[in-house]
Amino acid sequence: MIDVSRRHLLAGAAAAALVPAVPMRPARAAVPPAGKQVPGIYRQKLGDFELTQLTDGAARRPVSNGYVVNISKEEAVAETEKLHYPKDQVVVPFNPLLINTGSKLVLIDTGVGAGMYEKSKGAVGQLQTNLAAAGIDRNAIDIVILSHFHGDHINGIRLGDGSLAFPNAELKVPGVEWDFWMSDANADKVSGYNKGAWGVPRGVFKDLAGKVTKYEAGKEVAPGITAIHTPGHTPGHMSFAVQSGSARALVQSDVTNIPQFFMQHPDWHVEYDVDPAMAVQTRRKFYDMAVTEKTMVIGFHFSFPAAGYVEKDGTGYRLVPIVWNPGI
Amino acid sequence: MIDVSRRHLLAGAAAAALVPAVPMRPARAAVPPAGKQVPGIYRQKLGDFELTQLTDGAARRPVSNGYVVNISKEEAVAETEKLHYPKDQVVVPFNPLLINTGSKLVLIDTGVGAGMYEKSKGAVGQLQTNLAAAGIDRNAIDIVILSHFHGDHINGIRLGDGSLAFPNAELKVPGVEWDFWMSDANADKVSGYNKGAWGVPRGVFKDLAGKVTKYEAGKEVAPGITAIHTPGHTPGHMSFAVQSGSARALVQSDVTNIPQFFMQHPDWHVEYDVDPAMAVQTRRKFYDMAVTEKTMVIGFHFSFPAAGYVEKDGTGYRLVPIVWNPGI
Repeated sequence: MIDVSRRHLLAGAAAAALVPAVPMRPARAAVPPAGKQVPGIYRQKLGDFELTQLTDGAARRPVSNGYVVNISKEEAVAETEKLHYPKDQVVVPFNPLLINTGSKLVLIDTGVGAGMYEKSKGAVGQLQTNLAAAGIDRNAIDIVILSHFHGDHINGIRLGDGSLAFPNAELKVPGVEWDFWMSDANADKVSGYNKGAWGVPRGVFKDLAGKVTKYEAGKEVAPGITAIHTPGHTPGHMSFAVQSGSARALVQSDVTNIPQFFMQHPDWHVEYDVDPAMAVQTRRKFYDMAVTEKTMVIGFHFSFPAAGYVEKDGTGYRLVPIVWNPGI
Repeated sequence: MIDVSRRHLLAGAAAAALVPAVPMRPARAAVPPAGKQVPGIYRQKLGDFELTQLTDGAARRPVSNGYVVNISKEEAVAETEKLHYPKDQVVVPFNPLLINTGSKLVLIDTGVGAGMYEKSKGAVGQLQTNLAAAGIDRNAIDIVILSHFHGDHINGIRLGDGSLAFPNAELKVPGVEWDFWMSDANADKVSGYNKGAWGVPRGVFKDLAGKVTKYEAGKEVAPGITAIHTPGHTPGHMSFAVQSGSARALVQSDVTNIPQFFMQHPDWHVEYDVDPAMAVQTRRKFYDMAVTEKTMVIGFHFSFPAAGYVEKDGTGYRLVPIVWNPGI
């Protein structure tokens, strides 16, 4: 055990004798700060399945510019302070989920796309780097399931150069969602954010119309993974029940945006909802089911590792995050 | 986009023609399950400091055998169910904290010791592997601060072979704690768990009496890190205020064991408290301070990444975990 403070005192005294007028700069620790986060990867068993939560990163945004449509700006800002966030700022994480069923490697949702990684200075578009850090070859993914057609869920099917990120994967899309976004007749049914995002699915799927597989609610989309129609956020928005033996989890997709706002206040409308009133109905129904079932819920916009249990809390709900398991 | 299901159908048909009576086993995914957790490392900035939360792992234990001293076995078991844990089981995580102040690399608490890694099949004793995964050379650590003398905090100062794990670090111990555990006159002041653990500090510090530095509450133990006396859990138990510029965090050490039990129910006595009544007083005082200050609290036994904000909740408190930042 070296007495570091005494060693530094002596060194300081010697230095002072040589250059008495120059103040000593404090010594730097031998190890510089890492200055970056570790890869966002978290594994858990669900029956015989292995779930790997992978983060695609997170976006920061103010709430005073219409993030919550049906409350005042002041109320939204006050909520950020109540939650101990920087004033008028929320963090919206993006968390795709990888499921190894033993027979299939399945990815649910794909993030904002690797092309955003450089542009955002690594803040988002992390899925490909985190997949690689998790030891997963993107070419080994068998099935990609998309929950709905917002850019943070579908853009990641392509790399920055436009090539397919998962070239060997079957690409499964909700049939209702496909039909909605691909029909010009529906362009006038959306407004705000969705108006601006109207062309996104066509861009992403431009040459893939003949290659995607449409799936329906109530049926298995992959082994043990059954789609649940949870409309409102978008018309074809899908959640999933994942079942292996008696173990079960619910993958909510965007039944809420960040739970700190919209699970606690299920009647608040996030600006991304195509039909906010239906989204509220769906939200309450889905969380009532989760509360009754006591099933773990995985959420694309939950704080990484993006899983927890839902409790009733006053007129809303709250998320009790899972305890991080340092084993598996 | 290869149509995987069609490919498998064709392969299945071909196989069936050859061996029709043998049921097909499902194909295995090309990537086997990882079968293990990622290293538990999480970084955040606090002013100019970089904090790195490192997990040492977690222990599972039943609650029906005296974990909470002053409630019934039935009440304790019911709490595990309420929390969605396996019935009668809690997970108690161990999370040492590394602070790079820019001038010093400081470790607060050390886990159960690398010698436990193999014995526990990797469940605990992970600090050394996680430090290495974080790119930190254990020889580069300048200061090790110990909060109190329970084995899960001090045993990690040694490797499995008994040698010092941080040979170049100054080793700082609470003076009150040292005097308590090193005096035979106090042996009769403890009972239960602490009776069984009475000899632990002497074993760990056996040849280090002349090499440790005793520190006091109210003074800086390392740059920006000030000790706060939080007695009850043990007589010399210390928490810390970490301050860099205007950024501040509280490191609670063992003001509670797991917050899910003892923050929510601050009057419950964990079996590890030397003076449970004083521990309750300390707990309420410390959390009232955290609530008033709205300061982030880091807890050795919080779920990794072991940081959050404390809110009043009924007659107790609850922890609002920080949002995982995929950047830094």
